[in-house]
Amino acid sequence: MANPMRTFASDNYAGVLPEIMSALTEEAQSGRHARAYGHDNVTNEARLLIHEIFNSSPDDPLPGVHFVFNGTGANILSIMACTHSYHAVICSDISHIICDESSSPETVTGVRLISIPTDENGKINVDIIEEKLDRIGDMHAAQPKMITIAQPTEYGTVYTIDELKQISNLAKKHNLYFHVDGARLFNAASSLNCTLRDITTAVGVDILSLGGTKAGLMYGEAVIIFNQSLLKSDDGQDNSLKYRHKQVMQLASKQRFIAIQFLTLLKNDFWKKSSEHSNGMAQLLKKRLESLPKKNDKPLIRITRPVETNAIFLEIPRDWYKPLSELFPFYMWRTKTSEVRLMCSFDTTENDIDRFINKMNELIQN
Amino acid sequence: MANPMRTFASDNYAGVLPEIMSALTEEAQSGRHARAYGHDNVTNEARLLIHEIFNSSPDDPLPGVHFVFNGTGANILSIMACTHSYHAVICSDISHIICDESSSPETVTGVRLISIPTDENGKINVDIIEEKLDRIGDMHAAQPKMITIAQPTEYGTVYTIDELKQISNLAKKHNLYFHVDGARLFNAASSLNCTLRDITTAVGVDILSLGGTKAGLMYGEAVIIFNQSLLKSDDGQDNSLKYRHKQVMQLASKQRFIAIQFLTLLKNDFWKKSSEHSNGMAQLLKKRLESLPKKNDKPLIRITRPVETNAIFLEIPRDWYKPLSELFPFYMWRTKTSEVRLMCSFDTTENDIDRFINKMNELIQN
Amino acid sequence: MANPMRTFASDNYAGVLPEIMSALTEEAQSGRHARAYGHDNVTNEARLLIHEIFNSSPDDPLPGVHFVFNGTGANILSIMACTHSYHAVICSDISHIICDESSSPETVTGVRLISIPTDENGKINVDIIEEKLDRIGDMHAAQPKMITIAQPTEYGTVYTIDELKQISNLAKKHNLYFHVDGARLFNAASSLNCTLRDITTAVGVDILSLGGTKAGLMYGEAVIIFNQSLLKSDDGQDNSLKYRHKQVMQLASKQRFIAIQFLTLLKNDFWKKSSEHSNGMAQLLKKRLESLPKKNDKPLIRITRPVETNAIFLEIPRDWYKPLSELFPFYMWRTKTSEVRLMCSFDTTENDIDRFINKMNELIQN
Amino acid sequence: MANPMRTFASDNYAGVLPEIMSALTEEAQSGRHARAYGHDNVTNEARLLIHEIFNSSPDDPLPGVHFVFNGTGANILSIMACTHSYHAVICSDISHIICDESSSPETVTGVRLISIPTDENGKINVDIIEEKLDRIGDMHAAQPKMITIAQPTEYGTVYTIDELKQISNLAKKHNLYFHVDGARLFNAASSLNCTLRDITTAVGVDILSLGGTKAGLMYGEAVIIFNQSLLKSDDGQDNSLKYRHKQVMQLASKQRFIAIQFLTLLKNDFWKKSSEHSNGMAQLLKKRLESLPKKNDKPLIRITRPVETNAIFLEIPRDWYKPLSELFPFYMWRTKTSEVRLMCSFDTTENDIDRFINKMNELIQN
Repeated sequence: MANPMRTFASDNYAGVLPEIMSALTEEAQSGRHARAYGHDNVTNEARLLIHEIFNSSPDDPLPGVHFVFNGTGANILSIMACTHSYHAVICSDISHIICDESSSPETVTGVRLISIPTDENGKINVDIIEEKLDRIGDMHAAQPKMITIAQPTEYGTVYTIDELKQISNLAKKHNLYFHVDGARLFNAASSLNCTLRDITTAVGVDILSLGGTKAGLMYGEAVIIFNQSLLKSDDGQDNSLKYRHKQVMQLASKQRFIAIQFLTLLKNDFWKKSSEHSNGMAQLLKKRLESLPKKNDKPLIRITRPVETNAIFLEIPRDWYKPLSELFPFYMWRTKTSEVRLMCSFDTTENDIDRFINKMNELIQN
Repeated sequence: MANPMRTFASDNYAGVLPEIMSALTEEAQSGRHARAYGHDNVTNEARLLIHEIFNSSPDDPLPGVHFVFNGTGANILSIMACTHSYHAVICSDISHIICDESSSPETVTGVRLISIPTDENGKINVDIIEEKLDRIGDMHAAQPKMITIAQPTEYGTVYTIDELKQISNLAKKHNLYFHVDGARLFNAASSLNCTLRDITTAVGVDILSLGGTKAGLMYGEAVIIFNQSLLKSDDGQDNSLKYRHKQVMQLASKQRFIAIQFLTLLKNDFWKKSSEHSNGMAQLLKKRLESLPKKNDKPLIRITRPVETNAIFLEIPRDWYKPLSELFPFYMWRTKTSEVRLMCSFDTTENDIDRFINKMNELIQN
Repeated sequence: MANPMRTFASDNYAGVLPEIMSALTEEAQSGRHARAYGHDNVTNEARLLIHEIFNSSPDDPLPGVHFVFNGTGANILSIMACTHSYHAVICSDISHIICDESSSPETVTGVRLISIPTDENGKINVDIIEEKLDRIGDMHAAQPKMITIAQPTEYGTVYTIDELKQISNLAKKHNLYFHVDGARLFNAASSLNCTLRDITTAVGVDILSLGGTKAGLMYGEAVIIFNQSLLKSDDGQDNSLKYRHKQVMQLASKQRFIAIQFLTLLKNDFWKKSSEHSNGMAQLLKKRLESLPKKNDKPLIRITRPVETNAIFLEIPRDWYKPLSELFPFYMWRTKTSEVRLMCSFDTTENDIDRFINKMNELIQN
Repeated sequence: MANPMRTFASDNYAGVLPEIMSALTEEAQSGRHARAYGHDNVTNEARLLIHEIFNSSPDDPLPGVHFVFNGTGANILSIMACTHSYHAVICSDISHIICDESSSPETVTGVRLISIPTDENGKINVDIIEEKLDRIGDMHAAQPKMITIAQPTEYGTVYTIDELKQISNLAKKHNLYFHVDGARLFNAASSLNCTLRDITTAVGVDILSLGGTKAGLMYGEAVIIFNQSLLKSDDGQDNSLKYRHKQVMQLASKQRFIAIQFLTLLKNDFWKKSSEHSNGMAQLLKKRLESLPKKNDKPLIRITRPVETNAIFLEIPRDWYKPLSELFPFYMWRTKTSEVRLMCSFDTTENDIDRFINKMNELIQN
């Protein structure tokens, strides 16, 4: 039988962490029934652990926690939490939310997305954001109400704590909500060698999409709402998030099977193990790439973005893409410059890297 | 340690079929990477098996198959496949789509839901549907374009093949699409002792929400499109379902883990085992209920709907609900008449039934 | 040349009140420029007059006043003012909002419409409404947040002040907003011989669609918001209605030409003249219909609903519809019983009625 | 009494052309009833005249013609005609549709707007558009389906017939619809000294928002659909535009009063009179501005964009804006460079220009 496919395509080409699989199996084999739609004990336990991890004190009000199926669902629910349909959401022009989530944000929530050009490292800065805020109060214009950034960015780079604070302050100054798309937040925390709290609640993030799937879950993400004003009700009844969660088609009936995965990932900082592994594999791959033989004293490949988490962007000779990606599928990022993306995951092995580098060497020698 | 909770609340309070769990584990342990978003081999294999099961000939055109996360997602994607936003969808007044899916249908697709009163057995009939079709062509009125029924109904009753044909013919006569919400379709097929084909393609169903979660999957449903005109493109490009699947936030990145569950459930009619079990348990429970001692020669409980699949509806003495549901959670259906619903699932045991009936006996004796 | 067409079809088949036409002409001939989008003096004057008319004291807070193009626009803007997309709006099953406004409410606002059966006189009552409120707080169900009634109803009948108070109290009890679709509100006030205040602010109406077109304007309606909590901002900025007005495509650039029409209609209770005329014509028509000769001692026509404003519903011999409606177009309401609607307008004349009755007499004699 | 306000703010600060007012009055005084919602003779006559004007042969299929209330309504209806909610619309970054129509496009139709940077003259070109088309067929990305341009642009500049053809060809190459926002189309035709046909049907425009309000109507715009495939029905029934017109809240009950205005404007090319006047006034104003005395041999003002229709953009000394705009209101366009917009209208007079220039001279001398 053929070897199993291995790739550098995306951390969602990988499967499921063994520890996650064990937790799922144990829950399934328990024979327990559990209340559906999130009214179960596992969900509750996960919520309390999230409170403990993200808040600085047990006396802080509990965050809202809503487990969802996928990243698009998490982002759309986050928009719904923060906006009315006449609002606009400010994002980067390479953000997943504007590039890779179809027209879901507009169709489901009615808002406008306003994209901001990023710098070379895939980040947006406060000056450019502020230019887009000059029509607040003008009824003819869609009204900015939320800033969303990805941490890490789509280039795998990481906003520093100081950069996060600047954006957060800008948001507060203009009465906007600050959302972080943390599809790979664990990789960012490992990169900064900081706690999850340091890059969320501590810098004034109002609402977070916390990714699980790319961290090695089978499926599942979480929307975590820190800003208590988003949890207030209009009318003294339940807060709207409860209804939004269902409305946005992201409420799992057997939700305990998402919650148990998050519980496993978050307990005792287990997430560190896999995010440090994937980040480390990217560093190793980078080192190996930099050591590739040159041709006529000129390097054949060029790493194009800082390697700060588990992604490496590099330009390769145009005719390498086909043979390399047949062996190890990965994505062409920008055809014009032959810039490709290599993504390491929780299960990337040194052997994967060896085989990939060997193939490159082979191409160089031919 | 306490006994694990057991319930008659809903088949989604149950966990996961062991065979499904094994298939998931095997896939996870393979170490394989797989293309994301449905471009994997397992998805493809599942699609071909669905073709084989639902179509009468291998030469029939392939149905569209879209795996989704949950039942609401399946129904909304089905509406999107069939309608423009100025259309209306005809459903029963007890249907899940109008009672239990928030305002998702309206918010996400823009259409109107038009509800039709059901008969005592939870079915709608063609005469009442046809009354709602008198304004087709009138621009002031939302335009009916789709009829949706649940098979089995929310009362657990089953449309006969003849009844299905009548509705299908009405739909065709008025140029409407015929959708079946088959969240528990396997139970219906077992009840009718027929094939899945007999109650779908063979009676002219255009599009189907095929439920997995309530049949014992961890998560996952499928939207299956039989009517090829729904798969045609406006403009010679790909059909719109591909985009809709993503847009509606129901496209799993690690989709193979949904596909493997369906593959397991469908292969060699494995679904029959669990649906026959849950239907059978309902019959057993019914028999035991009917044998309960009377009081002053009058039965204390009354079964209110035909028991045709895995649900039993019955009126119980008002003061029984609390003690019974503390032991075995289940739902109060209609407070006014103290009508409750008992739902059996793939993992309901005779022991569950014994304990439940014993508790009833105890209540009778007190 | 042929006589101009005259009808009993709808008050929007009629043209424009001469006094309205004069006001428009005067404004146009002034040579004035005016600030666009409602920032003009005429709009401001109209707003103050509305405050004076509807509020009991000049010290009351100013209502929100938004002039819009048409009735559908007024109703949709009203829904937007009161709801989030996970909400539902309760209306009657014969209401214009559910029968004659396409799927606009759902498409534009995302909410569910829940229809309530009306009694023979086209009214809904609090008991039936309350039955639909039993799932408030349940995230699976669209959440009722607004009750809308038409005053007068689509049958031309009028809710008494006491009936209005009952609905208003029910709304307040359940934390719902009370909206009145007053497309023909002037006819209702004339019928009850009361002030506009008596049937709006005095009975706790939160928000009103005030009709102009059917009262003899060329075009234009107003959304008037009495409940100050609807005018509060989430975030200390402008209230959302300002943005909603533009967003819903109902903000006229040359808005002064709507405002001048309302100013003319409302000043010195000028509206009474035309609404009393159309109501009076309906009474005259009714009297003439009741005096039609019988055949074999049996009346040939039957008036089916109380005639309280400017509409008459009656059953006629089935073969009369064609010849009568060719002479004077009017609508068949219910084909099954040959029930038709005759609508008088501000410009209906005794001569119109004579000619219509003559034709009936002619049909009787043949 | 004070002089009436006169402005250079916008052509919608002006009132109504006298000839339009006469036509409205005549229609109102006729005493005629007319079928509502566009089923009247005036609407029909206007539709035939539009056919005659825009099509090259009477044998060409009739265009779809839908009269609407305002420009936002016209643009939204146009988007609805061309797209599904998973589509995207390409527009310029200064376009009215993205800058001045709130989030209506997204909220009502669900689509994404993708903005393209314009050149100095406010135009977009085919190369930049084409860059945005590289993900057609990729389900993760909102799918471009329509290109919209404004003719004239928001800077008052005019696309040449050749430029229009290039965009039209690009659209056809990629299977996109080509929409023109012609809020001031008459000014463009007068500027190019061409027919309306030359810049629409003759260059392959699929659908047109034809502006009336800024051309001197009291209210009213038209959506004209040339591409017959947009008028085809999915299902052999009426085309969807009929339903969309109502759904989008833009169907006037007394529609004849919009139609009569368009009939008047279009008959015998009456539109030329007013558009040539406003264009001419802009040229006169430009000439007068260029003749203003310099200070130290340096001009104090700078005209920043080609003056091709009725708008003039110029930079003025920062301290002029307040005194000038108090006398003659006009808009600050870009605060940073003190660039303002002066807009002439059908009723701008030489006297207006004299007074404005005099004030400028006064400011120079002080």
